Amino acid sequence: MASYGNDKEDYLKRLRRIEGQVRGLQKMIDDDKYCIDILTQVSAVTRALQSFSLGLLDEHLAGCVVDAAAKGGPEADAKVREASEAIARLVRS
Amino acid sequence: MASYGNDKEDYLKRLRRIEGQVRGLQKMIDDDKYCIDILTQVSAVTRALQSFSLGLLDEHLAGCVVDAAAKGGPEADAKVREASEAIARLVRS
Amino acid sequence: MASYGNDKEDYLKRLRRIEGQVRGLQKMIDDDKYCIDILTQVSAVTRALQSFSLGLLDEHLAGCVVDAAAKGGPEADAKVREASEAIARLVRS
Amino acid sequence: MASYGNDKEDYLKRLRRIEGQVRGLQKMIDDDKYCIDILTQVSAVTRALQSFSLGLLDEHLAGCVVDAAAKGGPEADAKVREASEAIARLVRS
Repeated sequence: MASYGNDKEDYLKRLRRIEGQVRGLQKMIDDDKYCIDILTQVSAVTRALQSFSLGLLDEHLAGCVVDAAAKGGPEADAKVREASEAIARLVRS
Repeated sequence: MASYGNDKEDYLKRLRRIEGQVRGLQKMIDDDKYCIDILTQVSAVTRALQSFSLGLLDEHLAGCVVDAAAKGGPEADAKVREASEAIARLVRS
Repeated sequence: MASYGNDKEDYLKRLRRIEGQVRGLQKMIDDDKYCIDILTQVSAVTRALQSFSLGLLDEHLAGCVVDAAAKGGPEADAKVREASEAIARLVRS
Repeated sequence: MASYGNDKEDYLKRLRRIEGQVRGLQKMIDDDKYCIDILTQVSAVTRALQSFSLGLLDEHLAGCVVDAAAKGGPEADAKVREASEAIARLVRS
């Protein structure tokens, strides 16, 4: 089971809401809505995706990374490096 | 017509691709995919949304803002202030 | 005169405060302060730099870009493109 | 000793370079340099601060967090929560 197993339904719900927001953006473009209003809406979607990522990352640290560290050995180092790279991608995007 | 009028089809195409990526994320969660792989994919969606916003903003500056400035008067100031606020939301999200 | 000419002293004051914060970070490292406290302080510096950039960009749009647009001609296009590239660097960093 | 203890000199060197860049920005403002060139330079400083944070965070995860996890107990949870909050501040700034 993935680290986020217990919250799977919550994560799916968030993504469905984001999908709906992206469809809403298509309707805004289709209806020639004002640029600035579209940009405001895109910022909302970006923030929702960020919260989604931060939630997932927190569960990954508390699950996978802590478990590997509790077992000890080189696996913990590999997990930390992998998590750090994912964090760098999040921070830089 | 909105500033992005000539590129409407291109913007819609990008949003449909982003919508597909968000549906792909739902499938990844549903299939218990590895957290880090999901996070990588979310970063890709975030970057696609950013490019979308930056394109729209560029057309807004070149269209609405430049037009208002060419006409002169207080409208230009209002358009710049509005654009600056949208840029701040983009930078901070 | 640069677009920010009237606020030069304000911008310098902000940068001196940021310089002081960066020196404060050096002292924190030197004193072996806790990582998380250092990270909190770096986030504050990053936000201060962002506000600085957003202020400067707003004055650039209201000054250089609006002036070029008021004059008309190809210069306005060049100024918008240049501003859009600077915005993209801000958003992506 | 802090998690970054072995790299203290490297972190101090980075911060001194950043401090120099911030002083360079003051000189640019003082010399009425072009807005866009200043913005480019601010983006470079922001990226340098980001790399600094990401390095520190990686050492914190590999040090403090992994150590707490290896010991087990509630301390590991507290360390993960604290790290997640720091990551959220980084991502959102």
